[in-house]
Amino acid sequence: MTTTNREWILAERPDGEPDLDCFELRETDVPAPDPGELLVRTRYLSVDPYMRGRMRDAESYAEPWGVGDALRGGVVAEVVESESDAYDAGDLVTGEGAWSDYATLDAADVAPVDPSVADPEAYLGVLGMPGRTAYFGLLEVGEPKPGDTVVVSGAAGAVGSVVGQIAKRNGCRVIGFAGTDEKTDWLTDDLGFDAAINYTTTGDYRDALDSAAPEGVDVYFDNVGGPITDAVFTRLNLDARVAVCGQISHYNDEEVPTGPRKLPQIIAPRAKVQGLLVSDFATRFEEASERLGEWVATGELEHRETVVDGLENAPDAFLGLFAGDNIGKQVVRVTNDAAGE
Amino acid sequence: MTTTNREWILAERPDGEPDLDCFELRETDVPAPDPGELLVRTRYLSVDPYMRGRMRDAESYAEPWGVGDALRGGVVAEVVESESDAYDAGDLVTGEGAWSDYATLDAADVAPVDPSVADPEAYLGVLGMPGRTAYFGLLEVGEPKPGDTVVVSGAAGAVGSVVGQIAKRNGCRVIGFAGTDEKTDWLTDDLGFDAAINYTTTGDYRDALDSAAPEGVDVYFDNVGGPITDAVFTRLNLDARVAVCGQISHYNDEEVPTGPRKLPQIIAPRAKVQGLLVSDFATRFEEASERLGEWVATGELEHRETVVDGLENAPDAFLGLFAGDNIGKQVVRVTNDAAGE
Repeated sequence: MTTTNREWILAERPDGEPDLDCFELRETDVPAPDPGELLVRTRYLSVDPYMRGRMRDAESYAEPWGVGDALRGGVVAEVVESESDAYDAGDLVTGEGAWSDYATLDAADVAPVDPSVADPEAYLGVLGMPGRTAYFGLLEVGEPKPGDTVVVSGAAGAVGSVVGQIAKRNGCRVIGFAGTDEKTDWLTDDLGFDAAINYTTTGDYRDALDSAAPEGVDVYFDNVGGPITDAVFTRLNLDARVAVCGQISHYNDEEVPTGPRKLPQIIAPRAKVQGLLVSDFATRFEEASERLGEWVATGELEHRETVVDGLENAPDAFLGLFAGDNIGKQVVRVTNDAAGE
Repeated sequence: MTTTNREWILAERPDGEPDLDCFELRETDVPAPDPGELLVRTRYLSVDPYMRGRMRDAESYAEPWGVGDALRGGVVAEVVESESDAYDAGDLVTGEGAWSDYATLDAADVAPVDPSVADPEAYLGVLGMPGRTAYFGLLEVGEPKPGDTVVVSGAAGAVGSVVGQIAKRNGCRVIGFAGTDEKTDWLTDDLGFDAAINYTTTGDYRDALDSAAPEGVDVYFDNVGGPITDAVFTRLNLDARVAVCGQISHYNDEEVPTGPRKLPQIIAPRAKVQGLLVSDFATRFEEASERLGEWVATGELEHRETVVDGLENAPDAFLGLFAGDNIGKQVVRVTNDAAGE
């Protein structure tokens, strides 16, 4: 086994759009596990839009990263050495770890990965935080009813693609916004969306909505913000629900962005607009994992991962999120090898 | 009894801020009641901000008024002639009627006014639609808990003044925004608000909130929109609730107004922002009327009406709402005389 380790740190805070200067790969020693801990070798790591918020020096729901701190996020990893009875060397686990080759994780903070259910990287997407976000966000905040029209922005992303499919299971008409024809084709041809709107080639989003959602919008699951959201708010039905999961189009804004005021628009439809964080549903994660796992195992729930190879390319994978490079979940494959090979 | 009648009609639709040219007083005959109807003489009529919406040629929750149509709203009136067993001549009733001296009302659509509970004009304010809006909007949408900090905009208006007092009954810390020192003094000295902010003389609303609401904002009851609302949204606590009751600062905008985007701000606090219309609670109006009536009769709930005299001055009273002329409920006294005098 190698004794050298690499990990990414925050080199500087971004000003506006982040670039590669914000990241630095440093060499460290492979850490040794304490009792109750696992030494793991990273197979896949997750890059997610919310991480942009952690790069800011501002309090939010996730603690900001300090300059010089290791970057962290969801990982799928193989146990190399176990100081816990719960796992053995060779087991695959998922949890929160550093962007590194090797790391120590508390065995109490990880969950097993079952490769018979899905490829391991799916545990960072449909079977991980994004899948649970879609599950609770749609069902508990969006409250979709059969016959409702559900609109999803960022529909071909890790969260949006699951939102739309669960909405279809719920008997809804589902319309997705995505940024390429390849994505919109995936939504309608593979995932069963009723319609998909390519926001880069469509001129008037309101007209497009009038065609795709002629009866108006009952549920809007928003991952994006900006002009898509502005258009959807003009088409909300009575008692519409808006789940505000993400606003990726605004994450690189250094000033508070301006746009059409929405509060005057929500009175007549009595719309409910609610911010959403998956951690609020932590006591029910098992419920989501069980159902999502079953739907994935039976093939009823489609999923896709966009894989960037190599730990050294993790910042590129992260930056690609803001360019919409990913279809489904964006992950970084750190190694495919079994540990020690 | 006189046989001439006067009523206000919509002469033209306003472009931006309405003015007197939008209104025309015409003479008509006193109508005759059909079976089941009452001929009434108007004592007080209500002017309300929502009426601005009815002057637009756009579908909304209230049907738009047509040019040439009689203007309508809440009235307190005396029965002159009854074709119903439910009421006798001389009874005071409240319901929805025209801006006129005389009108016919369906007896099934009116409610009795009990002058032993409060002066009749209070049935257009604290004991009418505004009071019920405050009651259901605060309790059902705002969901205040003891210890919560509640902020109210338009706090010295018909709705806001009741919202704040009910929030105090609920054990909340209550802060109101209003536009004159006379209003803020009324809020703190008479209504028991913990603090009041004069938005015309205060430079930085965020600083003012930090002093008045040092623990942040749990409930925001918004009647106004604009910069006050922009400031409050930066101070929302975890799980904050925003009841969007009115947006009077935007009612005269002909273009969709722009402002700081709020959706990115509600994710971290998981705030719930909901549009509110009192008619959604129609099945529970009796509950509100009973409680509000009891609190008013015992003097526990303060109320105030700003009275403009004369049917001919009704448009001025309406226009004054947008200048903040009223403290408490703005009403028009059409006549003080008993019918027939």
